Amino acid sequence: MRTLHHLPLSPQCRLVRLALSEKRLPFDLAIERVWEQREDFLNLNPAGEVPVLVEENGLAIPGGRVICEYLDEAYPDVPLMGRTLAERVEVRRLLDWFETRFASEVTQNLLGEKVDKRLHGRGHPDGNALRAGYGCLRFHLDYISWLAETRSWLAGNTISIADFAAAAHLSSLDFIGDITWAKAPAAKEWYARVKSRPCFRGLLSDRMSGIMPPAHYANLDF
Amino acid sequence: MRTLHHLPLSPQCRLVRLALSEKRLPFDLAIERVWEQREDFLNLNPAGEVPVLVEENGLAIPGGRVICEYLDEAYPDVPLMGRTLAERVEVRRLLDWFETRFASEVTQNLLGEKVDKRLHGRGHPDGNALRAGYGCLRFHLDYISWLAETRSWLAGNTISIADFAAAAHLSSLDFIGDITWAKAPAAKEWYARVKSRPCFRGLLSDRMSGIMPPAHYANLDF
Repeated sequence: MRTLHHLPLSPQCRLVRLALSEKRLPFDLAIERVWEQREDFLNLNPAGEVPVLVEENGLAIPGGRVICEYLDEAYPDVPLMGRTLAERVEVRRLLDWFETRFASEVTQNLLGEKVDKRLHGRGHPDGNALRAGYGCLRFHLDYISWLAETRSWLAGNTISIADFAAAAHLSSLDFIGDITWAKAPAAKEWYARVKSRPCFRGLLSDRMSGIMPPAHYANLDF
Repeated sequence: MRTLHHLPLSPQCRLVRLALSEKRLPFDLAIERVWEQREDFLNLNPAGEVPVLVEENGLAIPGGRVICEYLDEAYPDVPLMGRTLAERVEVRRLLDWFETRFASEVTQNLLGEKVDKRLHGRGHPDGNALRAGYGCLRFHLDYISWLAETRSWLAGNTISIADFAAAAHLSSLDFIGDITWAKAPAAKEWYARVKSRPCFRGLLSDRMSGIMPPAHYANLDF
């Protein structure tokens, strides 16, 4: 069976789980404690990071973006990267936006400070980082709202990897209770549509020891 | 004419210049002072960053990786992303390696501290960042040497975007005299092969006010 080496709250791993499920590709999940730097895992991915997808034929595909490009080439029946050249540019532009800009400005400052630091025993969250993270989150939620108000889905007329990349980050932040949905109604309406898709069920049933998600986390009518 | 909005020492811009030239696609260069946040430019790329490629039909493609994927789909005659699924995974894995890991561990710590800080009047280079950058550069040159010793090109049997991504970063660092090639002979031999390709000529003739590259920078037999 195809196996995804992952960590439950990693947005890049969640992105891949959503893409695999939307394409109806069955997979097993294997939690990888990347900080242990297992030699077998470093052989799969010298960068030592999750996600890594291992196909049944043994091909190891490391990294969220690399896996998404691979899946759309290997399993094109449910296309998630856009169809025309212009659509594909927009999907990849937004994928890049969420994987670099949102990741460094918001996710790293909030999830990184609150969860990763604790997991690795690196002390308490830094107040400046949290303030920067919450400030940038408001800006990004406004941008997502603007996209959702002007298009059917974030990158255009059809759901794509751009929606899943954004939803993956937001779902991890929602798990730790960091999103005030009432302040971003258009983003909330779009997120509710993504969240109610069958591909999202796996993420909503995730539980981690020591972290209790808020009551609305798994609620489709939040 | 197709136009690339760029900055001369930006490795992502250099990567795109190499890809365009290798594919023999003519283009004009337009320097974009991104720190001025021109409104017309923000309309092309809301992230406000170079590179942005604008096609003759007006399509704007922002970001090094997005442009490389686009070029290989729009102009497949000279393929640079690999042919088989496994080759494409390896090209994209290395592209990701250089654009995230090398960029943050080396380029940001050296080029960012020495050039970007001065350009933006943000003070002197930070000694700790420089030390970290030089330390990581040694590790990365060893990794490039290992790849170059075990394969014809970094990602496999044919030259690819992986070679150009690595060479783009190294060429920017070489411009500011930060690479001691004698300590990494296999990486040097591979870089000499990339540097001697016609697509590299434009980069080697770059000059910037206030920065003088070392004598070997444009020398093909360095």
